[in-house]
Amino acid sequence: MDIGDFVKLELENTTYSGTLMPSLNENTIVIKMKSGYNVGLDKKKIKNIEILESGDKPKYGLPPLNLEKNPKLKNISILSTGGTVASRVDYKTGAVHPAFTADDLIRAVPELMDVANIKGKVILNILSENMLPKYWAMTAEAIKEEIENGAEGIVIAHGTDTMHYTASALSFMVTSEVPIILVGAQRSSDRPSSDAALNIIAAVKAATEPIKGVYVLMHGETGDTVCHLHEGTKVRKLHSSRRDAFKSVNKTPIAEVNPVTKEVKYLRDVKSRDKSKIKEVVLNTNLEEKVALIKVYPGIDSEILKFYVDNGYKGIILEGTGLGHTPETFFEGIDYANENNVLVAMTTQTINGRVNMNVYSNGRELQAKGVIPCEDMLSEVAFVKLMHLLGNYEFEEAKELMPKNIAGEINESINLEC
Amino acid sequence: MDIGDFVKLELENTTYSGTLMPSLNENTIVIKMKSGYNVGLDKKKIKNIEILESGDKPKYGLPPLNLEKNPKLKNISILSTGGTVASRVDYKTGAVHPAFTADDLIRAVPELMDVANIKGKVILNILSENMLPKYWAMTAEAIKEEIENGAEGIVIAHGTDTMHYTASALSFMVTSEVPIILVGAQRSSDRPSSDAALNIIAAVKAATEPIKGVYVLMHGETGDTVCHLHEGTKVRKLHSSRRDAFKSVNKTPIAEVNPVTKEVKYLRDVKSRDKSKIKEVVLNTNLEEKVALIKVYPGIDSEILKFYVDNGYKGIILEGTGLGHTPETFFEGIDYANENNVLVAMTTQTINGRVNMNVYSNGRELQAKGVIPCEDMLSEVAFVKLMHLLGNYEFEEAKELMPKNIAGEINESINLEC
Ligand SMILES: N[C@@H](CC(=O)O)C(=O)O
Ligand SMILES: N[C@@H](CC(=O)O)C(=O)O
Repeated sequence: MDIGDFVKLELENTTYSGTLMPSLNENTIVIKMKSGYNVGLDKKKIKNIEILESGDKPKYGLPPLNLEKNPKLKNISILSTGGTVASRVDYKTGAVHPAFTADDLIRAVPELMDVANIKGKVILNILSENMLPKYWAMTAEAIKEEIENGAEGIVIAHGTDTMHYTASALSFMVTSEVPIILVGAQRSSDRPSSDAALNIIAAVKAATEPIKGVYVLMHGETGDTVCHLHEGTKVRKLHSSRRDAFKSVNKTPIAEVNPVTKEVKYLRDVKSRDKSKIKEVVLNTNLEEKVALIKVYPGIDSEILKFYVDNGYKGIILEGTGLGHTPETFFEGIDYANENNVLVAMTTQTINGRVNMNVYSNGRELQAKGVIPCEDMLSEVAFVKLMHLLGNYEFEEAKELMPKNIAGEINESINLEC
Repeated sequence: MDIGDFVKLELENTTYSGTLMPSLNENTIVIKMKSGYNVGLDKKKIKNIEILESGDKPKYGLPPLNLEKNPKLKNISILSTGGTVASRVDYKTGAVHPAFTADDLIRAVPELMDVANIKGKVILNILSENMLPKYWAMTAEAIKEEIENGAEGIVIAHGTDTMHYTASALSFMVTSEVPIILVGAQRSSDRPSSDAALNIIAAVKAATEPIKGVYVLMHGETGDTVCHLHEGTKVRKLHSSRRDAFKSVNKTPIAEVNPVTKEVKYLRDVKSRDKSKIKEVVLNTNLEEKVALIKVYPGIDSEILKFYVDNGYKGIILEGTGLGHTPETFFEGIDYANENNVLVAMTTQTINGRVNMNVYSNGRELQAKGVIPCEDMLSEVAFVKLMHLLGNYEFEEAKELMPKNIAGEINESINLEC
């Protein structure tokens, strides 16, 4: 039995069939089922194996296309960082191939030619679980280059795991008059249920709109009828596998994009932009990388804060409970951070809602220890923002800016209820 | 201007009025507004202060009630651990008073007398942000005592911040034939919009039902028409302030309870119970407290794992990205944990959905490094479960049990999509 073979595996009560995949674990056999999902099975439990069809080698390589620009359409650059949206998974070996030149794209999604003049560029080829802060800066620089070279809208193909972290990093790093749309897919493009093509079409469409700022575009429900355009600092991956995994938090999406009719329906007002400055991009890619994000829980060890402080960390986001709390047993570490001028700020692990550290004594005490409430900012966004602030401002200024809205990350509201 | 005074504060554009509260921060004035919400204002921004009414001291103390048992009703014990649901906030001083003898309860919610024979007992008086693993055992023991003394159902009044952690701890610790219902409130009982009374009524009602197991009961929507009964290992606080903050994840609630009509509508089948064993309770309160929960993010420092391993930790839950991933730059720390026999298990920070570590190479590599996928278990539950398993089993056995369902924490499904 070889990788790539189509096999039938019999267990006590169930039978699985699918293509044999590489497994890193000696005791497990991994097969990819027709549904496209992989299943790992314990070798010991397999009663019988049958090879239904032997596999063969994948073929690649096609001649380049010759594309002409349509003067009526906008010029959109698609920058690929990797991820499922930008990949062809080789079902025979399980390997993930990058497939993201403009040629690949147009071949895969010919409809794009009616939406915009497409330029494709591979800037990275990673699964987004491996995204690192230094790649955010690299991506920002690629965006600047494209815009200065005439791109009127940018689409970034990105893995979904950390797409919202990158979206918020770009929100703080890039100032421009052009829309920057991050797009991903939950199912790779060689699967019948793939959301890749429709998401890309809708993202390119959104990139031709007269808006500015950083957005995430993904399916808005499990069907194929609507995509949602989310603000880059107000969005989060909230499901591991559904196509509508991304949701705006504490805010509605900014628009619905129909991937079939290409209609765009705005759900809120958009920021006005200055068309005369469309080629101007200001970057600020400085980041203080010594920032940590800590989720708080009952019994959490206060020493963890000392570890970070003693290792030169400059900022810490605490993802607290409820309205923004930590156990009292954690206060010692917070005092230590405070004494050592480490900026500590608070978000909530409830995801939805706003931190309010004036209601309970715990929150008031934390504030007295210098902890900054992050209002209704998502933890992931607060983490990126703190890196950005500490990379650009003195401690006191960073502390003042942390709870203030800079890039749409905070809903300003004197109603503390939210 | 004294604590308790009703004051009017004028800022540049806004005027606030409310009762002056204690503030721990010299630069801030805290007032409680009519809405019940506290607002903290920067002293420097306050242009004018007017005292509208001076405060006075709160009064407490009432003679005990004389309650007779109704033989037609079940005997329900309400154990209070603290939190908003079990407190009267003194508006004049901002102090939180415990108010949870049976007398207090019946006085506050006389309707309870029609639902059950109530016994009240204060076992702790803390805000749940200060809940510690050792208090879980204390609570389990109090439950056992009540059941052995004739309680036919248990209600635990609990702060909402960490109620779901306690619910899952009790799910693993207590085996009994009696329903154990945790209940909280998002607004304290002295506020007109409080959900405390209705939640308690509905929780007591649920505790009289012929079910067993540990549940959380809270408002099911923002109105007062329906409460939801959630399985204790499948529920999470998902909003910092809304009354329907608790949601079942990857599962529907088990029942709707109408707090007004007291109707109970089951949404799923319930576990059958053995009525003859209704007084039997088996406790297993052993916990390995050296377990950590780590949220993973781009750039996370691999050294953090070494810190935990070197500090004698025995288990680590990684709240990974997407289907259960970490950056490759984190692998070194995972190897170190593995070499030192620290059990590492994976959940997902998407909250919804299931971990599947067979789809991407990252997940497969992590499994080869010994990382155990936690299926569709919530991170908070996985954290508590790992403490429980390492407190009771040898390493290898704990590793085998981690991805298996013990107390409803895993939806068993061969469909890895979920
Ligand atoms: N794990 C993949 C999933 C995806 O591409 O959507 C990634 O984030 O790159
Ligand atoms: N912070 C409070 C909130 C509540 O009681 O609901 C607690 O968890 O105890």
